[in-house]
Amino acid sequence: MKNKNTLKVRFLGGVGEIGKNITVLEYQKDIIIIDAGLTFPSDDMPGVDLVIPDFTYLIQNRERIKGLFLTHGHEDHIGAVPFLLKKINVPVYATKLTLSLLDNKLREVGVNKAKLIAVEAKSTVKVGAFSVEFINVNHSIAGAVAFAIQTPVGTVFHSGDFKVDLTPIGGEIIDLARLTEIGKKGVLLMLCESTNVERSGYSMSESVVTDNLDRLFLENKSRRIIIATFASNVYRLQQILNIAYKNKRKVALSGRSMLNVIQSAEKVKELVIPKDTLIDIEKIKNVPDKELVVVSTGSQGEPMSALTRMASGESSQVSIGSNDTIIISASPIPGNEKSIYQVINNLYRKGAEVVYESLEKIHASGHACGEELKIMHSLIRPRFFIPIHGEYRHLKKHTLLARQMGLKNGASLICEIGDGVELTQKTMRRIEKVPAGSSLVDGLAVGEAPSVVRDRKYISEEGIIVAVCCISAESGALALEPYIEDRGAGLDGNQINELKQIIIKTLSGYNVKRVGNKTEVIRLIRKNIRDSVYKKLKKNPMVLPIITEV
Amino acid sequence: MKNKNTLKVRFLGGVGEIGKNITVLEYQKDIIIIDAGLTFPSDDMPGVDLVIPDFTYLIQNRERIKGLFLTHGHEDHIGAVPFLLKKINVPVYATKLTLSLLDNKLREVGVNKAKLIAVEAKSTVKVGAFSVEFINVNHSIAGAVAFAIQTPVGTVFHSGDFKVDLTPIGGEIIDLARLTEIGKKGVLLMLCESTNVERSGYSMSESVVTDNLDRLFLENKSRRIIIATFASNVYRLQQILNIAYKNKRKVALSGRSMLNVIQSAEKVKELVIPKDTLIDIEKIKNVPDKELVVVSTGSQGEPMSALTRMASGESSQVSIGSNDTIIISASPIPGNEKSIYQVINNLYRKGAEVVYESLEKIHASGHACGEELKIMHSLIRPRFFIPIHGEYRHLKKHTLLARQMGLKNGASLICEIGDGVELTQKTMRRIEKVPAGSSLVDGLAVGEAPSVVRDRKYISEEGIIVAVCCISAESGALALEPYIEDRGAGLDGNQINELKQIIIKTLSGYNVKRVGNKTEVIRLIRKNIRDSVYKKLKKNPMVLPIITEV
Repeated sequence: MKNKNTLKVRFLGGVGEIGKNITVLEYQKDIIIIDAGLTFPSDDMPGVDLVIPDFTYLIQNRERIKGLFLTHGHEDHIGAVPFLLKKINVPVYATKLTLSLLDNKLREVGVNKAKLIAVEAKSTVKVGAFSVEFINVNHSIAGAVAFAIQTPVGTVFHSGDFKVDLTPIGGEIIDLARLTEIGKKGVLLMLCESTNVERSGYSMSESVVTDNLDRLFLENKSRRIIIATFASNVYRLQQILNIAYKNKRKVALSGRSMLNVIQSAEKVKELVIPKDTLIDIEKIKNVPDKELVVVSTGSQGEPMSALTRMASGESSQVSIGSNDTIIISASPIPGNEKSIYQVINNLYRKGAEVVYESLEKIHASGHACGEELKIMHSLIRPRFFIPIHGEYRHLKKHTLLARQMGLKNGASLICEIGDGVELTQKTMRRIEKVPAGSSLVDGLAVGEAPSVVRDRKYISEEGIIVAVCCISAESGALALEPYIEDRGAGLDGNQINELKQIIIKTLSGYNVKRVGNKTEVIRLIRKNIRDSVYKKLKKNPMVLPIITEV
Repeated sequence: MKNKNTLKVRFLGGVGEIGKNITVLEYQKDIIIIDAGLTFPSDDMPGVDLVIPDFTYLIQNRERIKGLFLTHGHEDHIGAVPFLLKKINVPVYATKLTLSLLDNKLREVGVNKAKLIAVEAKSTVKVGAFSVEFINVNHSIAGAVAFAIQTPVGTVFHSGDFKVDLTPIGGEIIDLARLTEIGKKGVLLMLCESTNVERSGYSMSESVVTDNLDRLFLENKSRRIIIATFASNVYRLQQILNIAYKNKRKVALSGRSMLNVIQSAEKVKELVIPKDTLIDIEKIKNVPDKELVVVSTGSQGEPMSALTRMASGESSQVSIGSNDTIIISASPIPGNEKSIYQVINNLYRKGAEVVYESLEKIHASGHACGEELKIMHSLIRPRFFIPIHGEYRHLKKHTLLARQMGLKNGASLICEIGDGVELTQKTMRRIEKVPAGSSLVDGLAVGEAPSVVRDRKYISEEGIIVAVCCISAESGALALEPYIEDRGAGLDGNQINELKQIIIKTLSGYNVKRVGNKTEVIRLIRKNIRDSVYKKLKKNPMVLPIITEV
């Protein structure tokens, strides 16, 4: 005898971490989706531009989907929305900054008919069987919310990405009063993020960063200051603008995403630019060092970013010298350590001073540490708990923390991509998996969900081009003529020569050795080869550039 | 007018860090070498087995070289010695454990006529113009020493890798009394390691690890304990053996390098194995969980290591279950984080408990932190200073520390690979660079120093084989027939088919997806292809396996 009055929760898509990417709630015929993020490909995925969730299950159930709710505007939560909306035109509910950032992305890929509904914190949206309340939380971007979702079976609480910052720079303190009320009324299921569960204590407040930036501006009075940070960290940008204004410095922005975010945030009034503070990066030569701050992308050592190009002497806008102090106001995301340290080493080689996180407290994490997670558990006191956002080890650790906070034995589950659970008012159990996992977006094959079989077919139909570029381990220059091999793409000798020229031209723009990380160069070579082949042959072979050092 | 009575110091070889790999001291016709380490290739060096220093300069000056002095037995200090001795048969001076570890390596590559001279701490070796005194220091391997080198120009002090451990587990406390005396007599130049210069305070003592391992054994009384650590950390192994004996547990060793080191260390009496404690790993099925400890390699998540295979269920010796507690007694070396965390996640998935460094203090670094470096500077008080071992940012930071400790303005230099300096009693200046950098060792091309030109020649003579293996991103199995392309190797259809079979067979032994990191699999495929091609054609083409996910 099947109980039809149950609530189902499913975790779809992405690489590795559940909750990041897509979470699905189902009650009878109604479905809502929370977040739709993307992942950037790791080094071992050549030929891949982006990794987005597999939408198969959502497409199969498209008629049932009532809405997409976004917790905040970071790439790993909204990056796959354009690809999803191309398949399913579902209304999107989010706070205004999140929508403003999303809007940029939608326009880039030509999605024009999206229904975007701005919702403020403390408001509730009712769709189908669900009432979704938006609750203000602190995070490293403005407009971040948690959701309290009323369903006929009980309340589901989704933390989003959060921290407890009692002295935030922008926005309000996380709405602890409302969280308390929600907990008191009873919560059936909590989904809570686990990113920093292994760190004990409390996360640092954003205002500690302010104090340190303040001091660094004083200590570097006569020097030019360059600050690299995440473009999406609107609070950080606001601080920098304010401190610059206070110190009578002009601010120039370097990096396209920095410009985009500042425009988006100013449009929705999440950022206030002090009068006469911004100047065009092209005009900084007329400003004395001590009256200038350059705010730049590249805090992760991304190979094509503004800061990396400054460090390797390839920036046409900013030339680094001994009167520069570079402040890297960010932590390395795991996996990026080597790239960012290479940038730091290169900046030192140019005689500059560099201030980074191992030396000063100039970055605050946006994620709750152990004690903050305990606060959340003590307020929400859910009957059931599923940890989200984190590797398996984090989810395991978060389960132990929940038990410590009074969660009953057997009231939690560790889920992985594709898993589903079914809840009644008194039970939670695993149910059958659904198609999930990741789609690899490779240029024109956007939004496809290539299973192995489909890929075999793809290659057998379109062919494959392998481009081997041997560069000198010493100089970074091409050491041998590029070597091109195709199978089934049908290139003739002329076309192969043309592709070789394209590679030589592409590589001449970038010193692969100096930029360190090759992912971006590979992406560019692939794109240029693909464009050329498509133009000539109207074919989309898989393109596999390989850069090897000799 | 050239002054002939000068001392020259040169930094050769390796990737990135000076001092690691090879340091050269020259006075008139005499040369001594300190250390000759290797680096493992990074992911962006396909086709490379090892990275060793370029020996060109040493070969050019072979007649002048009086001796090779080794500070300790870690790979990054002795790994290139076999390749060097194949070119130049120079006497090797080191403590007995270092020589015992080196001896294993020499026999592996067939170097039989090496002159290995064991030297104890407090002894002095006189060769040519140099008197080299061995001074005991603490480090994460037994038999580590610093060198005080008397030369006609003055004393050079080389710290080796060191820390100050006032409660070491094995060996003696770093010889602070002797360091004081040396400092008092006057030191012309100090070369001092910089690895942990960014960490303030003092490094943790090895005896803190003992206390925590002790407690973990008590807390896991009824469970099987598996400990992964560095094979070379003899002190750690000694502790584990002692604690196991105390708790009436047998110890089984898993991993070939673990067996090698234990044998080497026992032979030179740096390790004492308690009676009836060691048992063969093949016999552990007869031992109850609570009476067993397995000590394993793989603390860095190395793909083919014992622990990684246990975690992925591919170990024939140890099957992980819910009664296992795995203790990872090591820190991730930068770049290995992803691999080791994948191993930890997989162990948790099998129901085991895992204890690792973010959770407990079960590993002590072997390198001096800020305050310990200050102790060294305050004792040695050199006239000139060159920081070694570290990225540019570390060297820069170490220079600032030295200034803080009273080093005169202009009395330090930051050097990079290939750099040389010349000292008189009152001056230090840069001199011309010499050929330096790294050689890539690719199988049979052992010991060669391929410059770009030589590589072009190599490929043009021997050819290149590209082997593309497409594996399923979901299952890790081969998704397509391997794709083989050769240029100039002259394979016929049969041989190509044979190589395909070799790849299929190689990959069937390892689930690439599950082991995560592909470097080892790639190495194996390359080796197998090369062996087969050499047997058939007596050719050594460059082999470039590429594993891509679809």
